[in-house]
This record gives sequence, structure tokens and C-alpha cells, in this order.
Amino acid sequence: MAKSLLSIDLDRSPYENENVHNRWHPDIPMAATVKPGDDFILECYDWTGGQIGNNDSAEDVRDVDLTQVHFLTGPVEIEGAEPGDLLMVDILDIGTFEQMQWGFNGFFSRTNGGGFLTEHFPDAQKSIWDFKGMFTSSRHIPGVSFAGLIHPGLIGTLPSKELLDEWNRRELELYKTDPDRVPTLVNLPYADTAHMGRLKGSERDQAAAEAARTVPPREHGGNCDIKDLSRGSKVYFPVYVKGAGLSVGDLHFSQGDGEITFCGAIEMAGWIHLRVDLIKGGMEKYGIKNPIFRPSPLAPRYDNYLIFEGISVDEQGEQHFLDVHIAYRQAVLNAIEYLTKFGYSGAQAYSLLGCAPVQGHISGVVDVPNACATLWLPTDIFDFDLLPNTDGPEKFIKGDVDLPIAPDKE
Amino acid sequence: MAKSLLSIDLDRSPYENENVHNRWHPDIPMAATVKPGDDFILECYDWTGGQIGNNDSAEDVRDVDLTQVHFLTGPVEIEGAEPGDLLMVDILDIGTFEQMQWGFNGFFSRTNGGGFLTEHFPDAQKSIWDFKGMFTSSRHIPGVSFAGLIHPGLIGTLPSKELLDEWNRRELELYKTDPDRVPTLVNLPYADTAHMGRLKGSERDQAAAEAARTVPPREHGGNCDIKDLSRGSKVYFPVYVKGAGLSVGDLHFSQGDGEITFCGAIEMAGWIHLRVDLIKGGMEKYGIKNPIFRPSPLAPRYDNYLIFEGISVDEQGEQHFLDVHIAYRQAVLNAIEYLTKFGYSGAQAYSLLGCAPVQGHISGVVDVPNACATLWLPTDIFDFDLLPNTDGPEKFIKGDVDLPIAPDKE
Amino acid sequence: MAKSLLSIDLDRSPYENENVHNRWHPDIPMAATVKPGDDFILECYDWTGGQIGNNDSAEDVRDVDLTQVHFLTGPVEIEGAEPGDLLMVDILDIGTFEQMQWGFNGFFSRTNGGGFLTEHFPDAQKSIWDFKGMFTSSRHIPGVSFAGLIHPGLIGTLPSKELLDEWNRRELELYKTDPDRVPTLVNLPYADTAHMGRLKGSERDQAAAEAARTVPPREHGGNCDIKDLSRGSKVYFPVYVKGAGLSVGDLHFSQGDGEITFCGAIEMAGWIHLRVDLIKGGMEKYGIKNPIFRPSPLAPRYDNYLIFEGISVDEQGEQHFLDVHIAYRQAVLNAIEYLTKFGYSGAQAYSLLGCAPVQGHISGVVDVPNACATLWLPTDIFDFDLLPNTDGPEKFIKGDVDLPIAPDKE
Amino acid sequence: MAKSLLSIDLDRSPYENENVHNRWHPDIPMAATVKPGDDFILECYDWTGGQIGNNDSAEDVRDVDLTQVHFLTGPVEIEGAEPGDLLMVDILDIGTFEQMQWGFNGFFSRTNGGGFLTEHFPDAQKSIWDFKGMFTSSRHIPGVSFAGLIHPGLIGTLPSKELLDEWNRRELELYKTDPDRVPTLVNLPYADTAHMGRLKGSERDQAAAEAARTVPPREHGGNCDIKDLSRGSKVYFPVYVKGAGLSVGDLHFSQGDGEITFCGAIEMAGWIHLRVDLIKGGMEKYGIKNPIFRPSPLAPRYDNYLIFEGISVDEQGEQHFLDVHIAYRQAVLNAIEYLTKFGYSGAQAYSLLGCAPVQGHISGVVDVPNACATLWLPTDIFDFDLLPNTDGPEKFIKGDVDLPIAPDKE
Repeated sequence: MAKSLLSIDLDRSPYENENVHNRWHPDIPMAATVKPGDDFILECYDWTGGQIGNNDSAEDVRDVDLTQVHFLTGPVEIEGAEPGDLLMVDILDIGTFEQMQWGFNGFFSRTNGGGFLTEHFPDAQKSIWDFKGMFTSSRHIPGVSFAGLIHPGLIGTLPSKELLDEWNRRELELYKTDPDRVPTLVNLPYADTAHMGRLKGSERDQAAAEAARTVPPREHGGNCDIKDLSRGSKVYFPVYVKGAGLSVGDLHFSQGDGEITFCGAIEMAGWIHLRVDLIKGGMEKYGIKNPIFRPSPLAPRYDNYLIFEGISVDEQGEQHFLDVHIAYRQAVLNAIEYLTKFGYSGAQAYSLLGCAPVQGHISGVVDVPNACATLWLPTDIFDFDLLPNTDGPEKFIKGDVDLPIAPDKE
Repeated sequence: MAKSLLSIDLDRSPYENENVHNRWHPDIPMAATVKPGDDFILECYDWTGGQIGNNDSAEDVRDVDLTQVHFLTGPVEIEGAEPGDLLMVDILDIGTFEQMQWGFNGFFSRTNGGGFLTEHFPDAQKSIWDFKGMFTSSRHIPGVSFAGLIHPGLIGTLPSKELLDEWNRRELELYKTDPDRVPTLVNLPYADTAHMGRLKGSERDQAAAEAARTVPPREHGGNCDIKDLSRGSKVYFPVYVKGAGLSVGDLHFSQGDGEITFCGAIEMAGWIHLRVDLIKGGMEKYGIKNPIFRPSPLAPRYDNYLIFEGISVDEQGEQHFLDVHIAYRQAVLNAIEYLTKFGYSGAQAYSLLGCAPVQGHISGVVDVPNACATLWLPTDIFDFDLLPNTDGPEKFIKGDVDLPIAPDKE
Repeated sequence: MAKSLLSIDLDRSPYENENVHNRWHPDIPMAATVKPGDDFILECYDWTGGQIGNNDSAEDVRDVDLTQVHFLTGPVEIEGAEPGDLLMVDILDIGTFEQMQWGFNGFFSRTNGGGFLTEHFPDAQKSIWDFKGMFTSSRHIPGVSFAGLIHPGLIGTLPSKELLDEWNRRELELYKTDPDRVPTLVNLPYADTAHMGRLKGSERDQAAAEAARTVPPREHGGNCDIKDLSRGSKVYFPVYVKGAGLSVGDLHFSQGDGEITFCGAIEMAGWIHLRVDLIKGGMEKYGIKNPIFRPSPLAPRYDNYLIFEGISVDEQGEQHFLDVHIAYRQAVLNAIEYLTKFGYSGAQAYSLLGCAPVQGHISGVVDVPNACATLWLPTDIFDFDLLPNTDGPEKFIKGDVDLPIAPDKE
Repeated sequence: MAKSLLSIDLDRSPYENENVHNRWHPDIPMAATVKPGDDFILECYDWTGGQIGNNDSAEDVRDVDLTQVHFLTGPVEIEGAEPGDLLMVDILDIGTFEQMQWGFNGFFSRTNGGGFLTEHFPDAQKSIWDFKGMFTSSRHIPGVSFAGLIHPGLIGTLPSKELLDEWNRRELELYKTDPDRVPTLVNLPYADTAHMGRLKGSERDQAAAEAARTVPPREHGGNCDIKDLSRGSKVYFPVYVKGAGLSVGDLHFSQGDGEITFCGAIEMAGWIHLRVDLIKGGMEKYGIKNPIFRPSPLAPRYDNYLIFEGISVDEQGEQHFLDVHIAYRQAVLNAIEYLTKFGYSGAQAYSLLGCAPVQGHISGVVDVPNACATLWLPTDIFDFDLLPNTDGPEKFIKGDVDLPIAPDKE
């Protein structure tokens, strides 16, 4: 195995580690330098930097400080990389740490970030997932286990100053349309909790005040949360600054399409083994604006699916115009309703759909006024037979455990 | 092979065929009756009822009368089916007619329905696809061929009067928000071109005036345009009226997720072989609102993909809030831009993405404010190597053919 | 669909059809001519030419005249093909006839050909399989159904005289080592029942006396019985005579690796849609001695397997040296024993393994003295759960039906 | 990660490690004890115990002492296991050691074990494979890389005394038929180099004199070399002694069906994470003689294949009767011939087919006198296009490197 180029210590705060940062800004100094063709290992905190524990309380999820996220390892400078190049990144492998053989999933409180179904699940809840080699299962969600489709939720290159300004412009504009919205429309720059790596003093303060938050995916990649960008895949990133500046974090043991639970997938600390190379001038040659990638030859296959349809009519019966977001929400709600017939609580079903390798397809997007989205639930991950039959469902799940919940403090 | 339960004659207008209808209404008389466990064949017109020809002009696409679509075969009554049941439908096979070994794809004029990218491709264009057994290729889009993932774009059960009223209510409400929009937000009931099957006279007129158009997918299934609901799959439909009333049409030889070109997939006439059965009271037992289904064991597999990301920032740089529709549009535009680097015209690339078995995934839908959608382009369908390399793309496509175009008449 | 280039009439004997032959010889006249790039349809008898009926008696299997098989359609001349070329054949599609929506499987009497397990199942037995679109099931083997991996058991080019002589030499040599063996080691040329297509008179008689039997696969392809050489695959055949002379027959609706039951797969009459092209001088360019091929993108996938191991120690406990044949026989016997625990008769299990898409892998072939072969049984084709569990197997199969049997006549 | 239950030290001889053994005998003392439901890690030497080095000489392969192999870790006692039970083993994960990020493949000298094609490649040769995360490539075989389908070549339970006696009986019987054969027909018990774990003194000597060699697979599993028995799979082993006695070794980073090169797959040292459980009385309940298993959901998929046929006519043109071993040899030779057209040496091609995830299918085994075997070569593992085309093959491989060779010493 390659040596760790950048290491972390799970027993210390990520703020003490100069090779970690939690904002995007071109002035964040490079933490290490490699050459094209090199492979190397980066160690990563979980996205919250250790705020969530392996226990049966959801209070840590409720009380999480989201201004701190995501803690990324890097940036790594690639020698010779220049703006306009494509940075090829082979994700050679991803692994867990021996001292942290578990991950967490949860939904935030509606007043602190929420999630895809925050109107239905407004309180903080949590599930803990134990790792057994390639497999995972949860003491909070019985009857299911599966192999991890391990991937980085967040990986990307440093933005140029021009690109950063563009991000700030467009996001502020949206923010202003409803600044009081809960959950917020946009996470604006926030200097207090910014970790700018090795950048210190007034330079740090100046950059931190305008540095982009890490929550959304953007042109450089970033927090795409694409489950299929997994170990074994090959990614082509746009390069915006000299040296590219590759950073990575937010590792996931497994996730469903959409990362609907927001907190998030099965979140973990771990290490990632990468190899980098360059296509000089590749952005123009191939007309690249956002990253493109090739999936891994080594992904868990659970090819028997039960597929739920959703259309863009919301829970109140209101008709929306080709709104895939709403259509997918309906498909997800339909799947949750189905799962409860087998004994799961709604929260268990919701959490499961955020963690397991479910697919979310944009099935029809032109048949006005209804978009049609489909949620693909792999049936082989269940210990029991989940398919419909003429006898009706059997309550395999006894209801003796549920996800911990932590209502908002008054 | 089972005998055709309901036949058609491609040389005659669908309006002359009593076993065809093009609206949804509970009063449409059953065209045939079967028992649970029966299997049977239904013959289907292409969705336009023969308005589009195998030629090199897009004028027929430009001039199509969309108030006529979709011509469906049925409804088929299933003995013993009652509201609240689940109707299980095995799609045993789908095939083409010997006299129509071709299909069509196109984008409508922006003033007549448009398509997913109508702002970019405002004029009517068309591509013709020849069938050679399981495979198809187009004289208008060189360099590509693939096996058909054949499926019905439209299949569903008759709505009850209550459900129909609900559809009309919610769609009218949306329509009123912008009645002059081009393309229209909603296709309202339209009696003139309604084909109500065997329903005649004043009963026909009364029903036609309120019968739902067939364009959108709804709770009964309908025009879902789900490419994976293909031959070999098993579908569970809600039953809303006595006898269920199963109708089907809009057969597709192949389609990409989203059916982005709207006109549509590779559209074809053909036959479909079905078997039906019932789960009594299944809607309540399994908590079913929309159809659910299991995919076929027999689907073409093109497992090498190049995947394009898109985020919910539109072409003008405006930031939208978790809008998967816009994110998928960006992913599609990114793929089109990429394909043009190999010599395809934009229209060829757009059409190809509507026809080939591309996947559209809802990858991230919680990372405010950006949704992340991915378009999965199968690379093995191309005659040449489409992957990025350090030399840059080669123009394999010479540009000597393009899609026919028919600008709007003044 | 392309027109049938060569047709058959199921109601007439194949001996009356000049476009059919049942021996290999370079002098068999071409039945039709096509050009490189052409696609065309050939209609085919089942391999026995209609000797087996859709009934519940195995007497026809017992009494079959194996000197008649296999009835092939062709040969088709490809213009410009010369010895040393490679003939590329795209299998565009394969289908059944409306009047024969069923197929048969069986094991021959030990005294009339036998089968892989003829010592264990010495009497003629038969199962009938009904086709429902892409799927098949048998009234003689309950609890199982699956999609057909349709393929030609037999497809090949005409041998040159030199090649034919070589076949006759080497096979005769083997025959002489044990001429009285039952079943026979080799099927020698046999003029009486030879059908030489359009060849008549003394020329026919002379050729028939030396024409090769169609039973074994050879350098030209022939009776390979490779289940994966299915519709959608692309095959490269050596060309030995001017015009190549492509013939095909012995269509199978489905088969397991090995075609262990010999009579055979799920045997059917039907049509096959082919496209041909040439690689001039391809045998030398690519060093080709036997056909090579690429599998279809459209094969049924039943990816959950229960895998049985077998080693080259025979049923009597005798040790054989790296004998894969014996190792596979043990794996097959192990699978049969397992299936009987769920209520199947041995004959049902044996027949099922001959018909379903089981895989047979040569897993280890160097670990002296034991070869290791594995039989892969797809579990999703069963209506019930076939996997081991702590409670032991449940007898889902009630034993009220079995395969018809026809003991040898005294 | 679970702790290592049994550890090794790569810098010390396996003979110094009491938790290792290289023979099968019921008297080998248990090295550790676990309970049903436990998971644990076993560390394993490479099969030769470190005799082969990461260098460019094949002398170590030539001079290997095969009487020492295979070094196994164990036996592990499972509490409560009794003869007649089934031992369920989940292979939760397998990994490499940081200090040994490489593996080796080779063919032995014909006078020292040989290999599947020893008549064609009679001298010792070697290739070294570097690991980069999940992927591997070799400096001795350019143009190819692939993800590892990691698996234990050897895993099994202790035999009872009765079973051991049966093994010795039948293998000696075969040995006597040609005791002077080179390579040998059977590896007889050989006390000198036997490592009997903790067994010492006269008990050790007595057991060593009759202990079975580890080369062949047998009823207890053992050296099956089944590439698909990989991490993520679930295996059911017969139990022959109290406590079962599970041992494992001979880890492979990757292997082709057949392990044709004998030395062997890509051989590695590493660790394996297992979980065990019991089905009481399972051998009788399920009729189990040899192990059965379910494949992993997480296997590398290279689904584009070029498939080579072989029939049971040997290289000298002699006809054999349904001999799958010979048929597979022809398929392998055909593939090697094909690969040399692209510039590979025969030895490179042979080694590649032993290492890469090629499939070997028993395609037809009843069409007397020819068996038909197929070798499935995954084309996506090559950096270049390996498919036939009308222009003929291009020599992508320049021939500047080859496998080291070490001719026999005089």
C-alpha cells in the first residue's frame, strides 16, 4: 500500500491539523505536492470531524454545528497542472480505520438543516451501522445488510478567484429571495468556524470571509454525493488553479441515490488511495464544465429490484410542473409506506433508503405536467422476502427497536 | 404465441378501430374480457397513430396533431377485479410488425409541444431508426447501434370518476397559473379529437369533454415512459374501476431515461404479450398509490458508462434550489457538448440521448442549493472509442448527414 | 423483419425440403446466395425433424432415430467468401413459430445415445416446456420458470474435403478402440438416412457415404451447443470452401452449460435472423482454428447462484487424473441430490439442469490429481427459497407429477 | 476491523509458526477456538511460504520445494461443531499486507510439477504483479490491468481419520498406475517437510507419515482454486471432526478459471476476515458431499468477452472422447495464439490467462466424441482494442519485455 501522504489523528480536533480545511478558496495553501502518475493515500475525518458518536442518542445529530462541515484533506498540488487541464483521478481504493469500524446516518432537525423529507421527519434521528469487512448492518434497523459501495461524498479541485466570485454571486442572489427560510436556502460564507488549512492571520481572515461553504456540488466537483463515484472509478476534474489543488473528504461506506437523509449516507472516517494524471488543455478539448467519470468495475450488485414510481403531484395534491424533486419525493414516500407494511417504522425506512444502494432514476421528464421519478429498492439486501404476493405482507420486523430521536430543545 | 385479443390494421386510421381510445375516462367501454391467469396479445399503433413517416423530412413532426395522442389499445376487463385490488401484469414479450421495421424519434417545434431542450432546439427535427432483429441504428446518426430495451411508454388502468375529477382539478389549477405559456403547462380535455373507443353519441360527447388527456403519468400508471418497465418486467397496478380496464400503447423500441426528446423514444407500432392476475385488496395491504414493478431478467446490458454531472445552475448562471430538472438538463447539455467534439451535431447528440439506453440518476438532492444529477452514457454502443485520452478527441463522425429539420411555418 | 430466405413447413418431412440437410460434406449444393452485409432469415426444424411430440409419453424419445439428426437449414453461400477468410455472423434475433409454442427436453435410452448421466438414468424420459413470450415453464417440473437464452445449438460452415477426411480419419480411429460400446463412441457416416439437400443420384450416394455426422462440434463450429452463442452474439467462423456454406439448426429455447441431458436443451423449431460479413484472410491474420465469438448484450441475468463443487473422484470412489468430465458429473450429481431434498425427483432435477441457464465452470484443472468443476444453479428461477438455512429444506415440491418414462422394449 | 486471531510474521519461516500447517490430518491440534456467530481475522503466508521473490529471475520458481506447500493458517475450532454439521463461512473481506504490495505468477518446470500447458512451456517462468489498491498490473506483461477478484485458493475443514484413509487409498491406487510419471500423478504423503502445527514428537511423526498433501481439492474443500469463492461469498463446508477445524491459505489477488499456470494465480500473502456459523446436521438435511457456496455481491465485472472454443481433439490431431480437459486446453491454446498476433509472447499470454478473471465454461459435454469448452477472455482489461476487425490485428505489444525464464539445471 502506498504511504499516507496526509495523515490525521482521530483523537485530535481537525482544527489542529494543517492538512485539513473546510472551505473552498484559491488561497488555501497546498498541503502536499505530487507528480502526474503518482499514487498516494489521504486520510480523512468523517464529514463532521467527529461530532457524532457510536451511541443510542440522537442529541449529537440534533446539536451538530453545520458551519464546521465538511473537513477535507488537502489540497494536494499536482505538478504541472494548469487552468484548463483535466485532472484524471483514479480512486484505487478506500478503507476504514481499525479504530472506527462503524458509521452513522441521520436526519437533522428541521431547524438545523433538515433533509429531503424534513416536513415528515422534523426531528433529529440517528442510526449506527457496524462494519464487518465489506458488509454493514445496523442495530437500529433490523432485517437488512449489504456490501458497501464505498465512495467519497466530496472530492474536488480548488476554484479560481473568478469561479469563487461567481459562486458567491449566484448563491447570494438566491439567498436573498428568502433569507429567513428554515431550513436555509443557501449556506453563505462564515468566517468564524472556517478552517483554512495552513493559511493564518489576516490572510486567513480575509479568505475565510469569502470562502465558499462546502455543502453544494459545483463545477469543480465538490460535495456531489454520487454513490457511483466509488473506489475503482476514474474521474476527470476541471483544473482552475495552478497545481489543481485536489481535496477530499466525507467518505461514505454506502449511500442511496439522492443521499436523502442528508446526515447523510453511512458516514465514516477512513483513507482513500488515489492516482493522478493530466490531460493538458482537456477542458477545451472535451468541452468539460463539470467533472465526468467512469464507474468502477468493482461495485456490489444487487440486481433484483422493487421499483416505486412517483409523479410531481405533492403530498397535498398540488400539481407541479415537471418537478423531478417532487416526483422523487413521492417515490421515496411510496417506498417508505410500503416498507412500513412489513413492520418498519417510517424513520427506519427513511434511513434505510438513505443508506442502502437504492437507485433514483429520472424516468420521464417531458410528459407535461408530470415528471416521473423511480426509486429502485434492491430486494436482496433484506433477510426476508419483500415482494408482493396474494397473501399480503408479513410483519417480519417486530418493532422492538427504532431510531433514537432527539426533539428540538425548547 | 397467444392469439391477438385486440388487433389493429396499420393501413386504417385508429379512429376506425373501436378497440382503440386516446383519452382516459371510466365510461370508456371494455373492449375485451379476460380472466385472472390469462395471457393475451394486444396490437398497438405508434403513439401518433401513423402521423410520422419513414422519410427524410421533419415536416410531419412539425405538423403533428398532438391532440390526437396517444392511441391506446383496450381497455381490457379483468374478471373479478374491483377497486382496491392490485392488478399484476407480466409483460411476457413485445415485438414489431413485419411491415414496419423502423421507428422514429424527434423533437417537436417549440410552438407545438417542444421537448426537454426546446430552448436550444426550437425547431422540429426527426431521426429514423431501422430495426435489424434486436438491434437498431439510424441513417441520420452514424457511428452508433444498440439492442432495444423494448417497452410500452404507456400502460395503465382506467381511473374512477373521483380520480378523474381530481386530475382535472389539479391540472386546471396549474394551467390557470400561465394559460398562455408556450409550450403549454397542461393539456386540458379536448373533445374534438377524442377517440372514446366504443362509446358513441351524447355519452361519448359528455365523456370526451372531461376525459383526461394521455400525456402525463398519473396514479394509474399511464404515460410513465419508464424505459425499464420493459418486456419481462412485472407490474402491479392500482385498480380503480370494476374490471380494472387495462390499456396500453406508445411502444418504444428503446429510450433513454427522461425521454428527453419527447417525440419521443424510438417510437414504433407493434404488439405486446401480457398475462394478468390479481391481489385482492392489494392497494391497502401494500400501501400502494402509484404502480410498482420488478424489472426484467432480460435487459440489454451496456455496462461501460461515461457519466456526466449536472448541477442546478442554469445556462444563464442562475442558481436554482435543489432543482433536479435543471440539474439533469445541465448533465444532458454537458453530454451533448462532449459528443459534438467527436463530430456529432447538437441535434444528433440530443436525439441519441433520447433514444439510447442512457441512465439519468438523481445523485444528490439535499446539498443546498445544488441538486446533482448524472447522465450515464453507455460507451459500448458506439463504433469508436469515446473515452477521454491525452491526445484529445478524434472526429470520427464526418458531419455528412444530420437530422432533417422543419422550421415553423410563418 | 427480413424475409425468410429459406423456409420450412412443419407439416411436411424435412426430407422433402431441398434447403435442408443432415450431414456435412463440401459437395452439398448451396441452397441460397447472399452478399456480405446482407441480413436474412432461415427457418429451422427442431433437431429431430419433428420426431418428438407435445404429449406425456416418452416413447418417442425412446424410439427416436438418431441417424437422422440434425436437420439443418442451408447451406447459404456468401459471395466472395474464400478458404482462409473469417465469416462474421451477427445473430440478430431468434424466434419461435406461432404453431409451436413449446419445446422438449429428454434423456435418451442408454442403448440409444444415452446422456451425461446415462448410468443413473438409463431409460428414456421427457419433459415438455411451454413458451409464454420470453418465458418458459414445464408441466412436468413444477416450481420453476425462466426467460429463454435462445440460441442455435448447431451453426457452422461447410468443411473442405481435406478437413472432412481428417474428421473421418480421427473419428474412425477412436471408434475402432471400442466398436461395440453402448452408447457408441462415435457416430460414423451412414448413408441410408443422409439428407444431402439438393444433391441427388450417384453424387448424393457417394457423398452420403463419407459425409460427416452432425453430432460433434468441430473446427467449423457445428454442434457446439454453447448456450451463450445466443441471439445478439457475433460469431467468427473459419471458411473452408468457396462461398463458406453457412448452415444452422437445432435451435434451443434455453440450455444449461454442458447440455447434459443430450435430448437435449429445450429443443424447438423456429427461425433465426442473421447478418453476414467477411474478414478476408482472417484465419491467418488472427490465428483462428475454431470459431470465436462475442456474447450478446441481451441475455437473461439470473445473478444469484448456489454453486456446487465436484472433484474427479467418481461415484465408485475411484480417483481420476484431472478429469474435468468426471468432476462436472460429480457437481451435477451433487446438485441433483440437493434438489431432491426439496421434493424433486432425480429425473426432474436432471432435466432442469439440462434446460435452465446453469453455468458449468472449469474451476481448477492443475491441482493433481483432482480437477474441480462447479455447477452454478441460478436460484431466482425457482418460485421458492432454495438456499440452505438452519431449519433444513422444506418440501415445496409435492411429488404429484414426474417426467414420463419409457423403458426399453424387450 | 476484527483483531487477528492468528498472526504471522513474513520475516520468519512458517515452520516457526505453530498456527500454521501444511498437511491435512485430524490430529493437528486446534490453533484457536471461536463460537458460532464470531468473526475473526486469519493472517496467511503465500502458498510457498515466501520461496518466491519480487525480482526478474525465474530461478526461485524453478527451484521451489513443492513438498512444503501449502502453508495454511489454522485449524480454527468452532465450538459445538460436530461431524455431519454444515459450517457456514462468510468471507467478510480479504486484504494485502502493507509490506507486500505484489504477487507472483509462474509455471513450474516440467520436471517439478509443470502446469496445464507444460508440454508447450516446459521451463520455469515467472511474472510479478504490482498491486495499486484494488488493481494490479505486471511489468512483465504490458498492456493489461484489472481489479482483483481476491479469494482464498485453499480453505477447508479437517478430515476425519476415515476420510483421510479413503483419500490415501484412492490416490495411492492412481499413483501406482504410473509411479514414474513426470510430472507426478499424485503427491503422496511426505513426512520430511510436513508442518503439523503444534503437533510434536512421535505423534507428529506418525501423523506426518500419513497426512494428506494439500495440493488437490477434496470433499472438505481444500485447494479448490475457485476464483469465485471470493471475498463476500458464503460457503457451506461439511464438518468431519469435532470442532470442524477450519484452515485457510493460498490467497490469490486474481485468477482465471482453471488456475492453468499452477504457480498459480497471482499469489500473495495477506489476511482474511471470516464469520462462522453452523447448520446442525446439515450434511444429511441438504445431501451435501462437497462444499457449496453463494458468490459475492462484490465481484469485478468485465462483461465484454471474446470467447474461444476448444474441442477434444488434441494438438496432434488425435480424437479423445468427451474429454473436457483437452477441450479446455485447445481453447486456451487458441486464445494464446490469438494474443500473440497482437505482439504478446506465448509465455505472456499463458501467464495472463492464469491471472486475469477469464472464465472457463464446460459448454457441451454430450456430443460424442467431442467435448466443447470455452475460454472467456474479458476484453476491457486490455489498454487496446482486442476485437477482430477487417484490417487485421495491430501489434500493440512491442516485445521489449518478456517473462523471465529459468531452464532446468543440467
